[in-house]
Amino acid sequence: MSGRIILRKIGVGVVGLGRIGRVHTEIFASKIENAELVAVMDIVENVARSISEIFKVKYYTDYDKFLRDPNIDAVIICTPTYLHKDMIIKAAENKKHIMVEKPLAVTSSDAEECINKVQKYGVKLQVGYMRRFDYSYRRAKEKIEEGEIGKPVAFIGIARDPAPPPGWAADPKLSGGIFLDMLSHDFDIARWLMNSDIEEVYVQGKNVFYEEVKMKGDLDMVNIIFKFKNEAQGFIHGSRKSVFGYDLRTEILGTKGTIYIGNIKDDMFALGTHIGIAYYGISWFEKRFYDAFISEDADFINCIIEDKEPLVSGVDGLKVIKIAEACWKSYKLQKPIKIEY
Amino acid sequence: MSGRIILRKIGVGVVGLGRIGRVHTEIFASKIENAELVAVMDIVENVARSISEIFKVKYYTDYDKFLRDPNIDAVIICTPTYLHKDMIIKAAENKKHIMVEKPLAVTSSDAEECINKVQKYGVKLQVGYMRRFDYSYRRAKEKIEEGEIGKPVAFIGIARDPAPPPGWAADPKLSGGIFLDMLSHDFDIARWLMNSDIEEVYVQGKNVFYEEVKMKGDLDMVNIIFKFKNEAQGFIHGSRKSVFGYDLRTEILGTKGTIYIGNIKDDMFALGTHIGIAYYGISWFEKRFYDAFISEDADFINCIIEDKEPLVSGVDGLKVIKIAEACWKSYKLQKPIKIEY
Amino acid sequence: MSGRIILRKIGVGVVGLGRIGRVHTEIFASKIENAELVAVMDIVENVARSISEIFKVKYYTDYDKFLRDPNIDAVIICTPTYLHKDMIIKAAENKKHIMVEKPLAVTSSDAEECINKVQKYGVKLQVGYMRRFDYSYRRAKEKIEEGEIGKPVAFIGIARDPAPPPGWAADPKLSGGIFLDMLSHDFDIARWLMNSDIEEVYVQGKNVFYEEVKMKGDLDMVNIIFKFKNEAQGFIHGSRKSVFGYDLRTEILGTKGTIYIGNIKDDMFALGTHIGIAYYGISWFEKRFYDAFISEDADFINCIIEDKEPLVSGVDGLKVIKIAEACWKSYKLQKPIKIEY
Amino acid sequence: MSGRIILRKIGVGVVGLGRIGRVHTEIFASKIENAELVAVMDIVENVARSISEIFKVKYYTDYDKFLRDPNIDAVIICTPTYLHKDMIIKAAENKKHIMVEKPLAVTSSDAEECINKVQKYGVKLQVGYMRRFDYSYRRAKEKIEEGEIGKPVAFIGIARDPAPPPGWAADPKLSGGIFLDMLSHDFDIARWLMNSDIEEVYVQGKNVFYEEVKMKGDLDMVNIIFKFKNEAQGFIHGSRKSVFGYDLRTEILGTKGTIYIGNIKDDMFALGTHIGIAYYGISWFEKRFYDAFISEDADFINCIIEDKEPLVSGVDGLKVIKIAEACWKSYKLQKPIKIEY
Repeated sequence: MSGRIILRKIGVGVVGLGRIGRVHTEIFASKIENAELVAVMDIVENVARSISEIFKVKYYTDYDKFLRDPNIDAVIICTPTYLHKDMIIKAAENKKHIMVEKPLAVTSSDAEECINKVQKYGVKLQVGYMRRFDYSYRRAKEKIEEGEIGKPVAFIGIARDPAPPPGWAADPKLSGGIFLDMLSHDFDIARWLMNSDIEEVYVQGKNVFYEEVKMKGDLDMVNIIFKFKNEAQGFIHGSRKSVFGYDLRTEILGTKGTIYIGNIKDDMFALGTHIGIAYYGISWFEKRFYDAFISEDADFINCIIEDKEPLVSGVDGLKVIKIAEACWKSYKLQKPIKIEY
Repeated sequence: MSGRIILRKIGVGVVGLGRIGRVHTEIFASKIENAELVAVMDIVENVARSISEIFKVKYYTDYDKFLRDPNIDAVIICTPTYLHKDMIIKAAENKKHIMVEKPLAVTSSDAEECINKVQKYGVKLQVGYMRRFDYSYRRAKEKIEEGEIGKPVAFIGIARDPAPPPGWAADPKLSGGIFLDMLSHDFDIARWLMNSDIEEVYVQGKNVFYEEVKMKGDLDMVNIIFKFKNEAQGFIHGSRKSVFGYDLRTEILGTKGTIYIGNIKDDMFALGTHIGIAYYGISWFEKRFYDAFISEDADFINCIIEDKEPLVSGVDGLKVIKIAEACWKSYKLQKPIKIEY
Repeated sequence: MSGRIILRKIGVGVVGLGRIGRVHTEIFASKIENAELVAVMDIVENVARSISEIFKVKYYTDYDKFLRDPNIDAVIICTPTYLHKDMIIKAAENKKHIMVEKPLAVTSSDAEECINKVQKYGVKLQVGYMRRFDYSYRRAKEKIEEGEIGKPVAFIGIARDPAPPPGWAADPKLSGGIFLDMLSHDFDIARWLMNSDIEEVYVQGKNVFYEEVKMKGDLDMVNIIFKFKNEAQGFIHGSRKSVFGYDLRTEILGTKGTIYIGNIKDDMFALGTHIGIAYYGISWFEKRFYDAFISEDADFINCIIEDKEPLVSGVDGLKVIKIAEACWKSYKLQKPIKIEY
Repeated sequence: MSGRIILRKIGVGVVGLGRIGRVHTEIFASKIENAELVAVMDIVENVARSISEIFKVKYYTDYDKFLRDPNIDAVIICTPTYLHKDMIIKAAENKKHIMVEKPLAVTSSDAEECINKVQKYGVKLQVGYMRRFDYSYRRAKEKIEEGEIGKPVAFIGIARDPAPPPGWAADPKLSGGIFLDMLSHDFDIARWLMNSDIEEVYVQGKNVFYEEVKMKGDLDMVNIIFKFKNEAQGFIHGSRKSVFGYDLRTEILGTKGTIYIGNIKDDMFALGTHIGIAYYGISWFEKRFYDAFISEDADFINCIIEDKEPLVSGVDGLKVIKIAEACWKSYKLQKPIKIEY
């Protein structure tokens, strides 16, 4: 990296200014050395304007105009999943580098179209599986690669959200449902940590918490058992409810050790009374993974500057969609389903 | 219990003086108020004699003579699993109450024979799933029954032994293999905590740790996904290896809360150096469940005195054998298997 | 708060752009609703300029000019402790509200001068003891006030920094030394949580880690036992070394319960190998208290808007200086020292 | 140890059959290879008889007759502290080896008399500070000796009992009060782990929990700051109340690391509901230190067989009494007190 001359900072525009869009906006505004926040875009004008005022940048409400801004080198797509495909294709056609929030698209055929366009126009594409940038998951990856747990033979992931998905994400036709919208994080991290593709899944799923989730055709609690190509085995449990806060844990069993990534409690405060000692959970992913978002954004900018392939590529994004599709199929047919890549 | 007159203590004889037989011997010798250790038996005479000298009781090397001892009211069978059936039947014929170490028998047909004989002769039969007597599992049961976590909807069990099974237990034809010898503990506690039978299992299993386990025809790492009759779902992961000690954890997700029973580390000693803070595990089940064994033995004696059905009945012992048999079938056929009761 | 009309945002200028100054700069730039970052100042021009460019605000290298900027309503003083007094007095004379990083000043007589000037000119003064704004310490305060632990009777604080103080802070004449520079945080939180003044201290102190600390006349490990006016008792242990990371813990014993605020390990990553299970610490205060800094800055702005007394007042700042002075006296005379307020 | 011939087992008699006496009785009856429980003694006949029946040994109600039993080689004195001196002296005169529950005696002059008699008659004397035999404290000792934390520079002990002392132990004239009856454990372990004598103490103490403790002239919460001969520093906090169970923690700071011995919670059961995640404590020392009592008893027998000095000698027992006496003096005079050895 020494000796490299940066002629100017990478200009960044963020589109979709909901919860996660604001996180990226703030990070690009002040925390990424080689990036400059140039513009924000949202179809709701007063949202776009108010955010632009905080960060003293331009705002757009029209995606085509936004893409024509010559100061924007890279777009950060934070819109609902079902809008990703068209926005990625347009961005690629406009020669903008792309970071898209997870998942890449609603279907694997949409994802393939995106990947083709991105390749055709030679732009970077990074998919927002930020856990790969979290220090604890990174440390797990390092320790596995250093051989500290021997050969990894089992992956176990437990993911419980404190609440059901809001708005459009509640509709599996728009979001891909629990397997894609929520658990593609776990599939992605499983593939990465175990360094192997997932080749077969078997699913059990239920509606146990929310009537509205059931009415939309989604599930709110699932158990997935699966096989990796390298013969390791996996299990993921997902739930849209956890009453005391976000409950996300991962473990990897190896022939020489076990890695635990946990958060069932927060050691920062405990109250011991006659009923016992009470600990408290943390709220949700923004707090848990804030530093990971920063690292993710920084790494994306570095990939542009140094012309490297992003850590979470379009193909990574595609593969977890295929896994999620296989999960739905296994759920419906109630049998193990092989995944073709 | 007030007003009850005990004419004499229940006379107890322990047969099979290996590791777990010695634990029960010592407990009955000094820790169970209404029981009196009368005799011990082992086919190896110097084992039987040396133990008898410590506790100042008679010893036998012949099971028939042992059963004819008129001071023995109850026998504690701690021999290898494949000997259980014959010993239970003989004990029942001799009108002795029976506590048998888990599992009840190697096959479900053997277990059914045992249950029939026990019923015919009107003696008590308790199977040694001691986790039900452990304070943490009991507390879990109480909290579930008090409604503290709402309706239980998922059971997750993770069980990792520090070492492969020794001696005869390494042979699945004699021990039932990993699903029966090791994981029937987890099936039993799952049935009990969720208050529902398990009706379907799907298994993935491997040989990843020990060549000798593979040669005997057993597995050393398995993942089992299953359904309860009450529509709850379950998952059990079992491994015959855990390098830092016994790693046994259980969690139950309910609609209003989650219960965790854990032991991945021991808070008693931690060493913080420049590489981090290191905790240490506990060795194995004898240390983890010593108090549970005492409660189990006391409860068995109370069931005799008060003429009550033991907490872990012969039918409970039979059902987990059926589950283990279904696991082997699912492993071989690689599809979900329904269990008939 | 309803019905309140904000005519314009509070204009903020940050002076002293070292580590903590940059944290406040970034927070005021984007995270405080009713504040607007107007300018930054540092005597090193290229530091001032580069920070100003990131946040697109003016910069100054001269404090007098900075104070004459009519858009600055409030100054955030993040310079070395020995500069605080003069900068506070000038800011007050220029009718600027003031938030000053802890400690308020090097000596209690300097602090009294500051308080007098602030009162004379009617501006707000907040001292940066951010722990009071941390969610875990706030929760402790709430639980104590709700009576959950009965009457608090003992305070125990353990504070271990990963490294000795850098630069000017290594010189006790400029920083106040370990009792003021480091442990005034613990004294402040003790006074606040126990809701009582500290009236007597007895100190033992050593130089055990760093030759350079000793040469400057400071201590690097101290133990302080003390009494509160309300008859509760306290103990603080401070160390300038902790090899695995920042180790800060606090506990309050009450007649009905105990509160623990801890961080000896980070549950996020654990590695179990044959040597045990290793956890890892967190680096230092910026990571531990980042959210507290945001709450602190927001609260300061609210105090200006709503004309309220800041949570950590000048008098609070003065009192911990008196405690630190008594600690030095006790250390030198080796006897308990009463504190006069 | 190989090649050693044991002609006969060491005959053991236990005197004083209260709570701790029963623990030792049961351990010597079945868990100590080279010991044989010969007799028990208590002045209350039905207590002595009922315990003797459980273990099938003789019983006595008269100490002189008990001491004349030729099969008793060693006596285990578990009577109230104020009886220790006379019983130790008589046992020594009768040439019995002696293990005495802590503390050795009520006063240092009594302890010196005991030591003189023991030396005169050439019998072994071990004082029951069982923490030295606990695996976590032993591991701490080993790690310190192996240099893993560098040079130990600070000892911090926190000890909270769940309840006030019962019966005679509530009277400081009979028990030595909180500094001797309770905290001599912590002084002993501090001396041992830091490998240095304590040479000065300064004490603050209160009556905050129990009116009856105050009326008897004892304290129920104390904070003690002290200095070791080797220049390390120490702090012990003791409380006779902890509402959720026994709360005993110890830490040792070294120049290269920190050791933590803890138990504020029990990971075995946690309940996560909307109010947080609740853990539960453990009851008291019998459960915490059961294994330590076994090791302690076994080690005492080995010292007799191998003619070695016990790990916790009479002089160790004497020194903590001197420390406790200095604590009372410091409390009364409210100044630091030097200890003469």
